[in-house]
Amino acid sequence: MSRKSKGINAERDLIHKFWANGWAAIRVAGSGSTRYPSPDILAGNGVRRLAIECKCTKDNVRYLTKEEIRELIEFSRIFGAETWIAIKFNKTGWYFLSLEDIKETKNNYVITDEIAKNRGLLFEELTG
Amino acid sequence: MSRKSKGINAERDLIHKFWANGWAAIRVAGSGSTRYPSPDILAGNGVRRLAIECKCTKDNVRYLTKEEIRELIEFSRIFGAETWIAIKFNKTGWYFLSLEDIKETKNNYVITDEIAKNRGLLFEELTG
Repeated sequence: MSRKSKGINAERDLIHKFWANGWAAIRVAGSGSTRYPSPDILAGNGVRRLAIECKCTKDNVRYLTKEEIRELIEFSRIFGAETWIAIKFNKTGWYFLSLEDIKETKNNYVITDEIAKNRGLLFEELTG
Repeated sequence: MSRKSKGINAERDLIHKFWANGWAAIRVAGSGSTRYPSPDILAGNGVRRLAIECKCTKDNVRYLTKEEIRELIEFSRIFGAETWIAIKFNKTGWYFLSLEDIKETKNNYVITDEIAKNRGLLFEELTG
């Protein structure tokens, strides 16, 4: 399975979790390829809205570009949603990080599995 | 151009209009083919959220199934969004109808161009 297919499957699993827990969630069409900023997933439960950028990796570190983060912030601000980064490492579940949790470097942002495990919220914590 | 491509192009034009007017808007991936209810477009401006089902037609009447309407209502309720049906006839712009504006028949819902023109909101009225 390609890296892209794996990523989409992992996102679909996350969509299922939201619906199973009383949230509505959708994947955004053409996320990353349209001319407008957009998250990968939008979820809502009538009270909260979450704009989520999803990343999967086989490594123990994952980089995000400054552009990705800038667009995620911009979308969240205009739409009216909380900003979250969801990251999944090999054989872990999803961790949910807020912007304060990710480390800005000179050229990009970096998330290590250690940062995710120490600071990230689990799905139940994010939605509970 | 296929009917599906025309529909997607018309939806993209609508997305542009939202962004040009200070709203964030996205097309939903796999709308109509996923196992969960979902609208075609989700738009938000920090205060309001709109779940929109989009229909284009060359005729002067368009039918929506009861299932389409039921799913649109269910998504809107769980996510927390207003429910709207956007309809575009040949050589008209989009008209936005609420549920009270569409006519339920024995087997489905029906929107005529007359209903749309008389009761529908224009984009500026919807977002103003």
